Amino acid sequence: MRDLVLGLEAVLPTGEIWSSLKRPRKDNTGYDLRHLITGAEGTLGVVTAACLKLYPLPVSKAVAMAGLETSEAALKLLEIARREAGGGLEAFEIISRLGIELAVRHIPNSRDPLETPHTWYLLIETAGGAGDEAQGALERILTLAFEDGLIQDAAIAQSEGQAKAFWALRENQSAAQKCEGPAWKHDVAVPVSAIPEFIDKAGKVMQAFCPGVRIPAFGHVGDGNLHYDVLAAEGGDIAAHMALREQACERVDDVVVSLGGSISAEHGIGVMKVAEGLRFKDPVEIAAYRAIRASLDPKKIMNPRVLF
Amino acid sequence: MRDLVLGLEAVLPTGEIWSSLKRPRKDNTGYDLRHLITGAEGTLGVVTAACLKLYPLPVSKAVAMAGLETSEAALKLLEIARREAGGGLEAFEIISRLGIELAVRHIPNSRDPLETPHTWYLLIETAGGAGDEAQGALERILTLAFEDGLIQDAAIAQSEGQAKAFWALRENQSAAQKCEGPAWKHDVAVPVSAIPEFIDKAGKVMQAFCPGVRIPAFGHVGDGNLHYDVLAAEGGDIAAHMALREQACERVDDVVVSLGGSISAEHGIGVMKVAEGLRFKDPVEIAAYRAIRASLDPKKIMNPRVLF
Repeated sequence: MRDLVLGLEAVLPTGEIWSSLKRPRKDNTGYDLRHLITGAEGTLGVVTAACLKLYPLPVSKAVAMAGLETSEAALKLLEIARREAGGGLEAFEIISRLGIELAVRHIPNSRDPLETPHTWYLLIETAGGAGDEAQGALERILTLAFEDGLIQDAAIAQSEGQAKAFWALRENQSAAQKCEGPAWKHDVAVPVSAIPEFIDKAGKVMQAFCPGVRIPAFGHVGDGNLHYDVLAAEGGDIAAHMALREQACERVDDVVVSLGGSISAEHGIGVMKVAEGLRFKDPVEIAAYRAIRASLDPKKIMNPRVLF
Repeated sequence: MRDLVLGLEAVLPTGEIWSSLKRPRKDNTGYDLRHLITGAEGTLGVVTAACLKLYPLPVSKAVAMAGLETSEAALKLLEIARREAGGGLEAFEIISRLGIELAVRHIPNSRDPLETPHTWYLLIETAGGAGDEAQGALERILTLAFEDGLIQDAAIAQSEGQAKAFWALRENQSAAQKCEGPAWKHDVAVPVSAIPEFIDKAGKVMQAFCPGVRIPAFGHVGDGNLHYDVLAAEGGDIAAHMALREQACERVDDVVVSLGGSISAEHGIGVMKVAEGLRFKDPVEIAAYRAIRASLDPKKIMNPRVLF
């Protein structure tokens, strides 16, 4: 989202309107207030309008679901896919086997996308400038993946309906989880290359902390962004599970930060993660935040409880 | 460049080191100091290290030079090229006829890229994920452009050498200009759709201000970014020309700002453009800059003469 914001209008803590809509794609005439206000959780201004970049609709699209055994293989395949798609890699989403099972169990009209179960699934979408380019790129990607032993099975959607069915499995991950009860939720990002290490380490930490918990992880591999949600063991006590939430999150966050990651990729710090944020942030950075905030909002009237 | 910066390390005005290298691709855990310091011209910190995004090398590339009569046609062709290249449009650079002539005149081994002269030239580069994709996309783009009457001639580079020769015409624009004497230089950006209006209006303003000046404009159409340099009339007095620089720049900047553009797309404000910056910037924005700067550098020891 941040990358799409070209211009903003916001009401500043002084009550003044700062308007910088329709700005050109390049502008180096001062501090980038647009990026400062984006993600500031309303502490520096209330955004009242935004001007976003637009892209042309792809001429052709193709969608596949692949089954694989390791997240390391997903990373290797990402490299192939970025190269072979030549700028047209639209989606590269990982879903755990448990996530697929929960979607099939709870979401009407869902079904297993491949004949046999696999540890991980990748939803891959390509776009092309000509009618057959997207499909051609996807076929090349999957062929190379088979040859290199990175995937064990794959299906390319043969119709718009099948493409939608593949996407529905991904888009219903959160909804399907909810039917199993509340989770310890984490929206984390690690350097892309650290995804396998994160999954391995965080999984071990969680099982040691609370044996039997179920982790239907899913996310955007190209961003290193995982929605790492942890459900109670099958049939486990929900209240007991949620009583451990804070301790569990600290343990996951420790792994994230040890790998150079972010404890909040998309959702921000809000009120809930202030303590966790303070635990990890460089004091130099916190001091800079506070100085900037005080300079624009000396009375701290804007969303005072968030962001340290 | 801004879009490629993943992480930064900087020495802040306090002498403290702020280190945020190797950050993940998504991080919403506080203010984006990375974007605040990028482009701040050293006023908020001295950047000592940066971590940049990398992309895989394209499998295939193709380069063409097209000749056309109007900048409106260039815009229409950009739309076609973005669609047909399916994410693989690598370059879309406009060069004026005068710019081509100056390169041919002053740069050894340069020659006119097309048989007959055209008012404008576009250097188009595409990339693809397979051996023939880049060339295929470029052929589609040029075919559609011919059919729509947008271009009058085009040549696709048939060898690496020819591709380099096309690129050399673009890359030597500044060097070729210099051989003609100093110019009133402008590095401006306007909304992409306003490029033709800018070229038309600024050209009229310049000719009214100083008849006979020569304008070998070139730039990145997709960014709305033009290097709009104005040379003295053929054989004109250089000293007299440069004595008018400040007044000329004000007139060009007026046109830029009237179209919602930026008076400095890439090069910043520095010392030279402080007055021009102050003339156009919203006082609310200037006040925010000053407050932020004072909060991080109360003694104003960092590059004190720049940025207002």
